[in-house]
Amino acid sequence: MRPGAILTDVGSVKEVVLKDVSPHVPQGVHFIPGHPIAGTEQSGPEAGFAELFDGRWCILTPVPGTDEGALARLKEFWRRCGSDVDIMDPKHHDLVLAITSHVPHLIAYNIVGTAADLETVTQSEVIKYSASGFRDFTRIAASDPTMWRDVFLNNREAVLEILGRFNEDLAALQRAVRWGDGDALFNLFTRTRAIRRSIIEAGQDTPAPNFGRSGPRSGSR
Amino acid sequence: MRPGAILTDVGSVKEVVLKDVSPHVPQGVHFIPGHPIAGTEQSGPEAGFAELFDGRWCILTPVPGTDEGALARLKEFWRRCGSDVDIMDPKHHDLVLAITSHVPHLIAYNIVGTAADLETVTQSEVIKYSASGFRDFTRIAASDPTMWRDVFLNNREAVLEILGRFNEDLAALQRAVRWGDGDALFNLFTRTRAIRRSIIEAGQDTPAPNFGRSGPRSGSR
Repeated sequence: MRPGAILTDVGSVKEVVLKDVSPHVPQGVHFIPGHPIAGTEQSGPEAGFAELFDGRWCILTPVPGTDEGALARLKEFWRRCGSDVDIMDPKHHDLVLAITSHVPHLIAYNIVGTAADLETVTQSEVIKYSASGFRDFTRIAASDPTMWRDVFLNNREAVLEILGRFNEDLAALQRAVRWGDGDALFNLFTRTRAIRRSIIEAGQDTPAPNFGRSGPRSGSR
Repeated sequence: MRPGAILTDVGSVKEVVLKDVSPHVPQGVHFIPGHPIAGTEQSGPEAGFAELFDGRWCILTPVPGTDEGALARLKEFWRRCGSDVDIMDPKHHDLVLAITSHVPHLIAYNIVGTAADLETVTQSEVIKYSASGFRDFTRIAASDPTMWRDVFLNNREAVLEILGRFNEDLAALQRAVRWGDGDALFNLFTRTRAIRRSIIEAGQDTPAPNFGRSGPRSGSR
């Protein structure tokens, strides 16, 4: 690597990456971990497209002592790719990604696995009636198994922390269902609606119903 | 109601509906519960569109003694709306909907609530970085609170049964993350991919990455 080069990674677990990579970075090369919040359930160079980073956020996690000039150049690189850039502490980055990405992926993988294993409902029934909600989870649960195995192995701490919260909340919700606490259900379901609105207003998702996806007749059926 | 009329409902919990409605059905009127597996996160007549039922399944749950002629007419009605029609036992219907719709909705509502309540990650961070997976859950968690409260209050038994399975599986997955069991993670993540493929092959979702939704620049930003 030539001196003055800026090394970046697009992995997702900054604390581990920093620890593992830093000792191997040659003198005069700047290592600044970073993470674009963009992509689809598909992987590899063929899955890319020109607008991939447009209007998405890229998170950089410099450490104390990071060269300011190198950081500025890297920010400019991402800006020219179409991204908005945020700077974040590595530990905080891991927690933010655990709630916005890793735990959602884990529970999507989990519910798809649960559905596949039922003896009382056949797999063909799950597939036929998936338009009632389930199919959304299968998109996420179709993400690259190798990459996601490594994400969970390396962001263990933050994932387990957020998962603990999720389980605690789900236990309360389960209890509300069991005891018929309609107010508790209604209040949560009203609060969560507001978050969806904020995401659409922030330009991070389409306002079109069903993500604007086309119907089955226009699919591969 | 005129005699000979066919009364149908589009509620989702057939056992309760049958018990509550049947005593009030006038002599000579046929009551056949049914349920189209179609719709978006939006509700009301304005949320409808001409292709809503095209290529989707409609489940009818007749009971012993249901008039065969009335059932045939109702099937034809749904077919002319564009639906394929399946006949199902009411109890089985409730279980099928619990896994394909109700529990997925419950865990989507739950994760969005968990994210909103974190002290360590701000709501604005959750919104900005939602494109990494989380935003998919917010679409489902934006569904009508009144309707969904009633679904959970009325399909309690089947929801709790499926939720028990989900929790059991999630505990095993959590343990795999904690103990670094990469093979268990990889195997699950590979199995779930196959289900996504089957759903696309069955014409129940689009094969386009990210559901083919448009990027943020073309949204309301």
